[in-house]
Amino acid sequence: MRIALGIEYDGSGFCGWQTQPSGCGVQDALDAALSQIAAAPVVSQCAGRTDAGVHALEQVVHFDTPAQRPLDAWVRGVNTLLPRSIAVRWARETAPAFHARYSARGRAYAYLLRNRAQRPGLHHAHLGWHHHPLDVERMREAARVLLGSHDFSAFRAAECQARSPVKELRGAVIERHGDLVVFEFAADAFLHHMVRNMVGCLVQVGNGSRPPQWLREVLEGRDRERAAPTFAAAGLYLTAVEYDPVWGLPVRAPAAGELLRALGLPALVTG
Amino acid sequence: MRIALGIEYDGSGFCGWQTQPSGCGVQDALDAALSQIAAAPVVSQCAGRTDAGVHALEQVVHFDTPAQRPLDAWVRGVNTLLPRSIAVRWARETAPAFHARYSARGRAYAYLLRNRAQRPGLHHAHLGWHHHPLDVERMREAARVLLGSHDFSAFRAAECQARSPVKELRGAVIERHGDLVVFEFAADAFLHHMVRNMVGCLVQVGNGSRPPQWLREVLEGRDRERAAPTFAAAGLYLTAVEYDPVWGLPVRAPAAGELLRALGLPALVTG
Repeated sequence: MRIALGIEYDGSGFCGWQTQPSGCGVQDALDAALSQIAAAPVVSQCAGRTDAGVHALEQVVHFDTPAQRPLDAWVRGVNTLLPRSIAVRWARETAPAFHARYSARGRAYAYLLRNRAQRPGLHHAHLGWHHHPLDVERMREAARVLLGSHDFSAFRAAECQARSPVKELRGAVIERHGDLVVFEFAADAFLHHMVRNMVGCLVQVGNGSRPPQWLREVLEGRDRERAAPTFAAAGLYLTAVEYDPVWGLPVRAPAAGELLRALGLPALVTG
Repeated sequence: MRIALGIEYDGSGFCGWQTQPSGCGVQDALDAALSQIAAAPVVSQCAGRTDAGVHALEQVVHFDTPAQRPLDAWVRGVNTLLPRSIAVRWARETAPAFHARYSARGRAYAYLLRNRAQRPGLHHAHLGWHHHPLDVERMREAARVLLGSHDFSAFRAAECQARSPVKELRGAVIERHGDLVVFEFAADAFLHHMVRNMVGCLVQVGNGSRPPQWLREVLEGRDRERAAPTFAAAGLYLTAVEYDPVWGLPVRAPAAGELLRALGLPALVTG
């Protein structure tokens, strides 16, 4: 039987999603809890392998098990066995053809940036930080260049394993709430470090170091060396994964902007 | 010379504000950093001694030192020496008569509650949680009973050291943002555990266990035994301290509601 789960986690205490020999991955904790409920080894597959320190509002995973359990055992039962920083939100039985990663049609990420002179104390592991004032209008203008299907090699980490650097950026929303700046991106899929690299470049535009048109140069250059440094993992959240409704999963389509409202923000706007 | 500071912190890794022999208090970390900048022992005084696990958006402290330093040394210099979970927001030189605690005319706290079936994973140390659906209108009706000057003994912890149980509750705002419920309270001062005990009672009304009028019975009974259990520390934030403008501090008056907007919410409304 194939089961799909929606998972929320605080990535700050983990070395990323993926299982590691040392057991420091989010997946290690999840698979251990699932295996205990199933009374047999379980190996989960996720929609998006988040990096160390990256959070998820809704990661989607699937796994196969011969164990017959009420669905609630995969939610409340598993939650009693998970570390406090991970929680299962929902469980569904799915068709055997469903795959959390390969069936996904879209993903959305949000990046939360504290924009003020002093570094964050509260939520320091859940926010990026930039101390120069950022002009949101300039960043919006620059972000428009990125919309659509492009070769995003300029924003791709060296270790990225995606087969193609061409992705379709479907939405980019940037909003300010006091001293918190929220970036939201929706795409079919993202390259490794793509969001954190885009945010790094947009911040260079927002603080006046670069003109908005610079994003086009960077994008068209397809050269990681020309882009700005990768922004901190702490501010990044996987916020939604989109699937064909045929799979019957309780997930929202990750339309940027709408997502922002759904998020409500882990903000603490202290400005 | 007397210096006042505005401090932000994540209380989840500390045993409360106050200095402890084991050094686990927020104050221990702050005083150590201040002493290093001053090159002499510093002992700070705070506006409100928060409990273990309670956070602050704006705690105010003062201290005396003979050290002559540019004000920025008490902000950026101290921030380089503090743990990541504590940050100084601002520093001002004040008159010697200023006292962070005794000069305070008002305080405001916010309580953030995740209201959904599954326990929080993300932000688990920054939110309370209640799994039964809460009716915000019922809680607002109940909270109105608490406004004004009353003997709040019913909401007072046994170990409370306040001289009088009579406090003036000046504002109580309750709002829902998706599955996050935000309580905001402003008063001249609060008794020990007062906010967490009020939230505990309001939740009993919100989930239908008690009628809104029950809050009046509890308040008038002045008996801690009749109130609901104290709610978790994780959801509680000291959000503002109010002083006479004569002291020249960059602090907002803690008017409930306005505060909520200023806060912007550490939300992540996942509903």
